[in-house]
Amino acid sequence: MNSKPPALKVEDLGEQGVLERLQRFCPAELVGDDAAVVATAPGKSLVITTDVLVDGVHFSDRTTSPADVGWRAAAVNLSDLAAMGATPVGLTVGLSIPGDVPITWIEQLYQGLTDCLQQYDTVIVGGDVCRSPIITVAIAAFGHISPEQVIRRSAAQPGDAILVTGVHGASRAGLELLLHPSWGSNLSKTERHSLIQAHQRPKPRLDVPLLLGQLQPGRVAGMDSSDGLADAVLQICRASGVGARIERSQIPIPHALALTSPEQALEWALYGGEDFELVLALPPEIALSLLPQLEQGAAIIGEIVVGTEVQLIDETGQSPAIALSLSQGFQHF
Amino acid sequence: MNSKPPALKVEDLGEQGVLERLQRFCPAELVGDDAAVVATAPGKSLVITTDVLVDGVHFSDRTTSPADVGWRAAAVNLSDLAAMGATPVGLTVGLSIPGDVPITWIEQLYQGLTDCLQQYDTVIVGGDVCRSPIITVAIAAFGHISPEQVIRRSAAQPGDAILVTGVHGASRAGLELLLHPSWGSNLSKTERHSLIQAHQRPKPRLDVPLLLGQLQPGRVAGMDSSDGLADAVLQICRASGVGARIERSQIPIPHALALTSPEQALEWALYGGEDFELVLALPPEIALSLLPQLEQGAAIIGEIVVGTEVQLIDETGQSPAIALSLSQGFQHF
Repeated sequence: MNSKPPALKVEDLGEQGVLERLQRFCPAELVGDDAAVVATAPGKSLVITTDVLVDGVHFSDRTTSPADVGWRAAAVNLSDLAAMGATPVGLTVGLSIPGDVPITWIEQLYQGLTDCLQQYDTVIVGGDVCRSPIITVAIAAFGHISPEQVIRRSAAQPGDAILVTGVHGASRAGLELLLHPSWGSNLSKTERHSLIQAHQRPKPRLDVPLLLGQLQPGRVAGMDSSDGLADAVLQICRASGVGARIERSQIPIPHALALTSPEQALEWALYGGEDFELVLALPPEIALSLLPQLEQGAAIIGEIVVGTEVQLIDETGQSPAIALSLSQGFQHF
Repeated sequence: MNSKPPALKVEDLGEQGVLERLQRFCPAELVGDDAAVVATAPGKSLVITTDVLVDGVHFSDRTTSPADVGWRAAAVNLSDLAAMGATPVGLTVGLSIPGDVPITWIEQLYQGLTDCLQQYDTVIVGGDVCRSPIITVAIAAFGHISPEQVIRRSAAQPGDAILVTGVHGASRAGLELLLHPSWGSNLSKTERHSLIQAHQRPKPRLDVPLLLGQLQPGRVAGMDSSDGLADAVLQICRASGVGARIERSQIPIPHALALTSPEQALEWALYGGEDFELVLALPPEIALSLLPQLEQGAAIIGEIVVGTEVQLIDETGQSPAIALSLSQGFQHF
């Protein structure tokens, strides 16, 4: 009989669990946000983030061209910089690739990367290419920021308005269209295109830090909604030691999602992920000043409250209030 | 009959060929060194590098523990910073990993990373963990530098001395010992340990930029010898549009390599790679000032000359002069 307990595996802990176990290897002040902030000179900090995309996990040939993989890889990392309030400087590309991949695949990947970066006045500043049985795109991106403009998850306070910078659920609906084209047969060509673009060519919200800089809000909490709107609100609340009330009717959902049931649309908006909007908690007067400067779709969806619970409220009284949980969110393992 | 020509593949071009094809996507001034240099403020620049290690390609369970993989991943990137003359600030870790890997494997990897970083007063500033069929460790590292202290491959001039900061061939011999322990049966325990350490725990030469800073040399060309001493000399000559004469007898080879034939020892010193020393081309008077400040093993091995050929000279006249070429060097595809 072998009574030795089985070794704990990566899949037993999940992505969040693994990251928590690894936090002891990093300086405490650098952990817990979309990116790390390192002081480089008086009044100047460097913001650094990294993300890895793996073939078959984060993208697939069925739904993503190499140019779209490149665009998304850039957008994911730029979104992390936007979520910290930073202005991008550049990024590095670590590409692992099987030897039998056509060179045009890589060139299209780089074209997609640079197409996205050019929109945001950013460049590729370094790269490594190596052989691997599976395509992996590892990006590190960095930007600069004044220390007083850093957006942190942990800065939310009761009374703050919760503002989202755009609609949610569009990326998940775009993925549905790519996987099951029949789903969207009642949509106009424009609507279909818009949803697919939301999935394939997400736009990092680097405009938001610039707008916030003009408002000089003093304190803004937030993160991006790459892992879902629910995840973002829950992470901000957990990091800040507060709760939240979200008004179901205020969550901005694309009109095209009227095609599906309200429950399905809400599910996609809350848990679909990859919308790459920013979710901010900030003083209500600042939220009200910022809102008209954002594109259609931006909305104040609720408020930060004392406590720890994140509740979804139906003001019409037709649905019961429910507590949101991370367990429905996207997990990488 | 299908007369369409076969698509050009990654393996047809090799690593250098792929990187050359990708250069058009990067700003020209950032291409061609171990790392990119980006101006961040007057008199201050950020140096950025990235490297990817893939299980079965860059390391294997036969020769490398997870802690050693971590150490090497950190050392490879810190060496790129040293090769630019920079002082490290921090690095990010993008880890792709199968779900069935024990969590202790990752913890040991991170322990090795931080063990190395602590030696050089550097920290992990960010990370991502995601699922993948194969373990891939993607590191991006950054440091700071004053623009006038940047070491570039392209700065060599005829008349420069070529200085290497330590012995070459030790890492390759250490690998041989790990793969074929019988090879080193005549070596002392200390010698065996020293060679294996050279392979498993290479030391980035971050001391060299500090020493150079004190000498204020004005101009230094160089790179690290991670892909071999021959590769480093050839790359510097190609980038600078010059040739070189290397004196075979001056190449510092570890004493333990007397065990093998002189030809084998020279082969490992020139093409073995992964010694992570710096190869510098600089005015002879600066080289002579620097040399006594470096540890045993550092040597002036030759000089930069007019032309494009890199010749290996035997001053004893026992061997003919030969022209070095990249074709024997380490290629990733």
